[in-house]
Amino acid sequence: MSASGPHVRFRMRIHHEGSIAIGPGKIALLEAVRLQGSISGAARHLNMSYRRAWMLIDELNRTLASPATHAEMGGQRGGGCVLTPVGEQIIALYRGIEETAYAACASQIDAMDQLLKR
Amino acid sequence: MSASGPHVRFRMRIHHEGSIAIGPGKIALLEAVRLQGSISGAARHLNMSYRRAWMLIDELNRTLASPATHAEMGGQRGGGCVLTPVGEQIIALYRGIEETAYAACASQIDAMDQLLKR
Repeated sequence: MSASGPHVRFRMRIHHEGSIAIGPGKIALLEAVRLQGSISGAARHLNMSYRRAWMLIDELNRTLASPATHAEMGGQRGGGCVLTPVGEQIIALYRGIEETAYAACASQIDAMDQLLKR
Repeated sequence: MSASGPHVRFRMRIHHEGSIAIGPGKIALLEAVRLQGSISGAARHLNMSYRRAWMLIDELNRTLASPATHAEMGGQRGGGCVLTPVGEQIIALYRGIEETAYAACASQIDAMDQLLKR
């Protein structure tokens, strides 16, 4: 596939007890927390409200056997937030699954691509 | 993974010239057309308006080098609609890609699953 041609996106979601436990939005948020060092910074980075970012992180952590983030001292919105080893593992697994899926399906994706108008 | 535990969904979308050329909605619609033998039947089956179903099929066909469906004689809404060999091929490729992706990622998905609360 050329860069200007069609492109393929896989989106993986893990459903757990009726809601989405892990999906592209939560993974992007974890990556933003890692980059920014806080939930407020991550929320700004993703153009999301602090409230929504906090809620998503909280929801994720309550779904996990062990939390993905760790709040650092310094009070409410001011305090930092870092990823735990579990948080790092979730990002690595999620991005790894995407890569594996693309690689495994390359020839089928190419065949689908051939059916599109040039 | 147990049947009652978390379940994983891959969703593939092929973007082409700024819009989604092929995605889960259009594939489900093609499958419904195959089952029902008409766009109106497919629309009812999917609880979708005839207008929307027709528009999605039209959009899909205009993206493809060769159309996925063929209208049978009998006038407007009354007429039947059958899949062309290209339509069958698109469904087979799409569902095949999903299966390949799940199979290739099984151990990584399992590792992710282990991180969720029981």
